[in-house]
Amino acid sequence: MERQSEFTLRRRVQFHETDAAGTVHFSRYLLYMEEAEHAFWRAAGLSIAPLEADYGWPRAAVTCEYRAPLRFEDEFEIHIRIVAMTQKSMRYACVLTLGDVVVATLTMTTVCVAKRPDGPARSVPMPPVMHERFQVARDAPLRG
Amino acid sequence: MERQSEFTLRRRVQFHETDAAGTVHFSRYLLYMEEAEHAFWRAAGLSIAPLEADYGWPRAAVTCEYRAPLRFEDEFEIHIRIVAMTQKSMRYACVLTLGDVVVATLTMTTVCVAKRPDGPARSVPMPPVMHERFQVARDAPLRG
Amino acid sequence: MERQSEFTLRRRVQFHETDAAGTVHFSRYLLYMEEAEHAFWRAAGLSIAPLEADYGWPRAAVTCEYRAPLRFEDEFEIHIRIVAMTQKSMRYACVLTLGDVVVATLTMTTVCVAKRPDGPARSVPMPPVMHERFQVARDAPLRG
Amino acid sequence: MERQSEFTLRRRVQFHETDAAGTVHFSRYLLYMEEAEHAFWRAAGLSIAPLEADYGWPRAAVTCEYRAPLRFEDEFEIHIRIVAMTQKSMRYACVLTLGDVVVATLTMTTVCVAKRPDGPARSVPMPPVMHERFQVARDAPLRG
Repeated sequence: MERQSEFTLRRRVQFHETDAAGTVHFSRYLLYMEEAEHAFWRAAGLSIAPLEADYGWPRAAVTCEYRAPLRFEDEFEIHIRIVAMTQKSMRYACVLTLGDVVVATLTMTTVCVAKRPDGPARSVPMPPVMHERFQVARDAPLRG
Repeated sequence: MERQSEFTLRRRVQFHETDAAGTVHFSRYLLYMEEAEHAFWRAAGLSIAPLEADYGWPRAAVTCEYRAPLRFEDEFEIHIRIVAMTQKSMRYACVLTLGDVVVATLTMTTVCVAKRPDGPARSVPMPPVMHERFQVARDAPLRG
Repeated sequence: MERQSEFTLRRRVQFHETDAAGTVHFSRYLLYMEEAEHAFWRAAGLSIAPLEADYGWPRAAVTCEYRAPLRFEDEFEIHIRIVAMTQKSMRYACVLTLGDVVVATLTMTTVCVAKRPDGPARSVPMPPVMHERFQVARDAPLRG
Repeated sequence: MERQSEFTLRRRVQFHETDAAGTVHFSRYLLYMEEAEHAFWRAAGLSIAPLEADYGWPRAAVTCEYRAPLRFEDEFEIHIRIVAMTQKSMRYACVLTLGDVVVATLTMTTVCVAKRPDGPARSVPMPPVMHERFQVARDAPLRG
């Protein structure tokens, strides 16, 4: 299986994702990015949260720039790609598009940490299979 | 400490709880009831989900009747009371009011189950402290 | 186009729908039922919330019985069917299944009301096209 | 009334804000920031979304850095302050703290736009009252 660098998820806006302004609430864009991330992992034969795992993937940082609204029943695309990968972390860039319109651009850094029921998290090297299935996207720009 | 039968939580509608119809999304009423339940337990000196617990409280049944809408920044009350209590389960009745207006009436049955990472849940007797802190509300009507 | 009485939506559990108990939060089942309802309407060529509509569909009542948990990445089905239909309201029954397991059974009554920016809602006859596209399901039981 | 530059909201983690990792889902931090923003406006005698308004405040950009987890029933603080203000936009910085621990730092830029049922949003000067009630925080650091 070739190593994967990017993934596109097609998704429809659900009514419960809108707010009283008539458009999608700005916090939901993070849910969209995460749904694409997890679908990306599944497409690479992996789960980000297997029941038996003794590690997890908390987020270290997120950014989002909003360019156009989304409305109920809009069918949009979430393009996610790996832009950096270390022994312990991954960084994604993500673009939401509605037809030709760029709706938002996001980034997310996520870190592999040992699961501990309480106390501070400790980052650990990610499972080796990650480097067999994923790789950083080439220098092609995110769009175009 | 006297055994508790009911509790009232005052709460304001948050913007992210509304939807494109301009009012609170119907699913959020369950969140409101749950927030009141957990505040009720705290007022009785208990947590519904202590870190070290080997049991949990999944829901068995919920009903909700909607009578009036809630809008952004409305300040409303959630009245919750215990209407039944067995060795393994509790049943609540709940009323949401906005001033004199009844917004919704709800019920919820929740069951004490042993925590198991996988497989079917098994109901177990609730911790004895529950019967020391809680009791079924007397026959007084929920409102009035 | 034949009048429609039921619809099935296949859906995967998203991570943000789970809670600290490790399973799907009980309020999300209402979101699942609503997503199936709206997909059902789209399959019948309708939108439940067109931009230009001067009416809406607030919920009058919901019930949910929980029988089995759902976990992250479970792929389950939402079966929704019309069990009653008047001039102003519709009533659905809904079953969530994970393979052969019944996860939950729900009902929902929704009412057609005139849109008013403020003040009490007033129920109105639903658009005639509704009766051309939808009809009550026959007496076949919901499952089997 | 003196012009306001900052605000602190005390808040408890609700169970429905956690996920299967046992901690608060990363998207909820945006909800916390927004709740503090709206409480800040109310403390200044304003609503961010009055029913009769012909403008709204969509978000232009958000960032969040995550430093420590939040768990069910944690009682934490959200400190929000205005770091920039133009004729058409506001920029906030926000810190979440749990006791002495910094849980997260966020920023948000929000823009005043004319409400239009459809089509692209157009930014407009914010109502003059905004400049009477709010001002950019002095150079004091956000914490300390």
